[in-house]
Amino acid sequence: MEGVDLLVRGAGELLTLDHGRPGPVTGEAMRDLRIVPGGAVAVRDGRIRAVGPTAELEARFEARETVDAAGRVVMPGFVDPHTHLVFPATRQGEFEMRCLGKSYEEIARAGGGIRNSARRMREARREDLLDRARRLRRSALRHGTTTLEAKSGYGLATEPEILSLEVIAALDDRGDVVPTFLGAHEVPDEYRDDREGYVRLVVEEMIPAVAARGLARFCDVFCEEGVFSVEQSRRILRAGREAGLAPKLHADELHPLGGAELAAELGAASADHLVRISDAGIAALAATGVPAVLLPGTSFFLGMKDFAPGRRLIDEGVVVALATDLNPGSSMTENMQFILTAACLAYGMTPAEAITAATLNAARAVRLDDEVGSLVPGKRADLLVLDVDDHRLLAYHHGVNHVARVIHHGEIVE
Amino acid sequence: MEGVDLLVRGAGELLTLDHGRPGPVTGEAMRDLRIVPGGAVAVRDGRIRAVGPTAELEARFEARETVDAAGRVVMPGFVDPHTHLVFPATRQGEFEMRCLGKSYEEIARAGGGIRNSARRMREARREDLLDRARRLRRSALRHGTTTLEAKSGYGLATEPEILSLEVIAALDDRGDVVPTFLGAHEVPDEYRDDREGYVRLVVEEMIPAVAARGLARFCDVFCEEGVFSVEQSRRILRAGREAGLAPKLHADELHPLGGAELAAELGAASADHLVRISDAGIAALAATGVPAVLLPGTSFFLGMKDFAPGRRLIDEGVVVALATDLNPGSSMTENMQFILTAACLAYGMTPAEAITAATLNAARAVRLDDEVGSLVPGKRADLLVLDVDDHRLLAYHHGVNHVARVIHHGEIVE
Repeated sequence: MEGVDLLVRGAGELLTLDHGRPGPVTGEAMRDLRIVPGGAVAVRDGRIRAVGPTAELEARFEARETVDAAGRVVMPGFVDPHTHLVFPATRQGEFEMRCLGKSYEEIARAGGGIRNSARRMREARREDLLDRARRLRRSALRHGTTTLEAKSGYGLATEPEILSLEVIAALDDRGDVVPTFLGAHEVPDEYRDDREGYVRLVVEEMIPAVAARGLARFCDVFCEEGVFSVEQSRRILRAGREAGLAPKLHADELHPLGGAELAAELGAASADHLVRISDAGIAALAATGVPAVLLPGTSFFLGMKDFAPGRRLIDEGVVVALATDLNPGSSMTENMQFILTAACLAYGMTPAEAITAATLNAARAVRLDDEVGSLVPGKRADLLVLDVDDHRLLAYHHGVNHVARVIHHGEIVE
Repeated sequence: MEGVDLLVRGAGELLTLDHGRPGPVTGEAMRDLRIVPGGAVAVRDGRIRAVGPTAELEARFEARETVDAAGRVVMPGFVDPHTHLVFPATRQGEFEMRCLGKSYEEIARAGGGIRNSARRMREARREDLLDRARRLRRSALRHGTTTLEAKSGYGLATEPEILSLEVIAALDDRGDVVPTFLGAHEVPDEYRDDREGYVRLVVEEMIPAVAARGLARFCDVFCEEGVFSVEQSRRILRAGREAGLAPKLHADELHPLGGAELAAELGAASADHLVRISDAGIAALAATGVPAVLLPGTSFFLGMKDFAPGRRLIDEGVVVALATDLNPGSSMTENMQFILTAACLAYGMTPAEAITAATLNAARAVRLDDEVGSLVPGKRADLLVLDVDDHRLLAYHHGVNHVARVIHHGEIVE
């Protein structure tokens, strides 16, 4: 008998998402969760050692510790590939204004929104930023998110952008909080009359400073009418890429500017939002394999009646992923389970498709599909024991936390 | 010093909802939560003994047990005035069909929906029904719902309707699960060609049987195109009223049939759903004080792009309440916190209005406003300690359970 650290046994449905290769899947394969009934997972040194029927694994391995899944669903931890985890304060006042009829864009134009956060960020203390981000990260973990991406973007000046990325670095000990530089999240107050000047600051000062410190893996831009044009976005993302930061893009959220096409052109790690993606944009993502990260919680939270064409993106062969977009303005939730429900309802995805989008395909959107997103020997032992015996219940029975047990890097989270 | 059982002290915001009389509020008063900063609540024998500033109550009372709210929000427990708590099985298969484009009405016409549950109900065992309902009730409590209404309505025959109400009775020990008879939830398979025959069964056999056993406080009807007409609904609700069951009504959900007008005519305990309420219906509810119970989670779960006119109902002086509509077909959640968020976003209610609608006004919709819904001496000691310091965060930061402590009938729920 071979010794292992942990054996998770007796799953009713073990969702392996093992498609024979580590990467993402498209089209009909998204509905196939590669379920092993009565499955088990053996874990050693924080990695998955083996996956298979319980009887088989119990015959092969002697485990120091055992978790009995007792007929319930066991699945890979969620990967949340789009969050704005570090911010100086919640913005419930703006939420209240929105309830009373002001639009997100009106609030932004009046100096609220991201610029509101940026002003507060200038006075924020490192300890407070870290404390807030740590509590949200911990809550996300308790709701099943074992890996998440985190963006800067409320600094809008070199020093607070660096500070944000240092806070993100302080959260991560084992590669499970993926840092993205988003200096081009908005144009700060002092550059409203010199937008090009801010683009130059991002390109010439911020990107080199971030890259020199090794603080980010990705460079992101909010490409949107009234924020950064396609041309400005291209310049920023190219500069980032030359400095070693792979491109990501807030694309076609409120207006169809061609952000998806730009993401395809640059070979971006992902194109995110896509509520207004064009036909050409869909074709470009499908042709290049650039993942579409959809954010149904944001559409919900902004009260939008239009959604990204999630069903069509899947049917046309795009790598579709899901994320929370956790941020204090347009999506104040860290819970990927809610995102599954919202994706099913908004896009007409099935629960299985949503699960694939929130694990395997989401891992691709942060280029960690070799590491996480499926239950395959060699990947990180990030897995969830749910309190349901049918994976569809995870999306269907909403508003409650179905995660009974989180195993993160092979350790049981208490 | 007077002895009390429990003192909840040190609230940052104590939301008393004490408007000087126990009943519901309308219009601008819904935004006034009657907040006592730094407030405390003294509890004796399961009832509220006193409410006021912490220093004052600590000088007056000696408590056997103290809960320190530590600057956070303390508020009345939620009252959920519309649930279908007792059902034989979840219906995730129909959810999946809906994801793939089938409408709720198409599924119902094909024999799914309520009739699906009714067929399974005929084989259901009492222990299983009770076990499922008890788990959901317990989960609702952990999410802050201290009082809820529960309907029968999946039996659609005398015996299983009685069984459902007996299960509801078994859940309730102290008047916090309010039973409603909803035999007229759908026309069962065997009466599809004799709808009038089913109405007669409800009126002549079921209502007398339910009333004789003292198993329900309210009688409800699904008044909807293809289900029960206004005229049939009137007959059923009058028969219920004569037997001592106050009327309630599923009204104007999918089509504007005049259900709200009927509720006003009958002096119903509430008119529920109201997505398609007419101008005359709004005026009738405002004039009679019949509460409108809005169910934004149902609109969300059915993927509807139209919502009840919540903002307008408030502005026109209707007593507006909120509920989950917990049921396996059109709203699979027991969490009132999600309902607050959905109400803010769907109706343009403020967080404060949503809290009033989910406590004080919801209590009116089950005619328990003398007992629960606000923190007033003499009412049941049903209160929540949240993990937030601003009540707006309860609606704004969604997808997580903000209830840190539930006190139910004066006892701390473990």
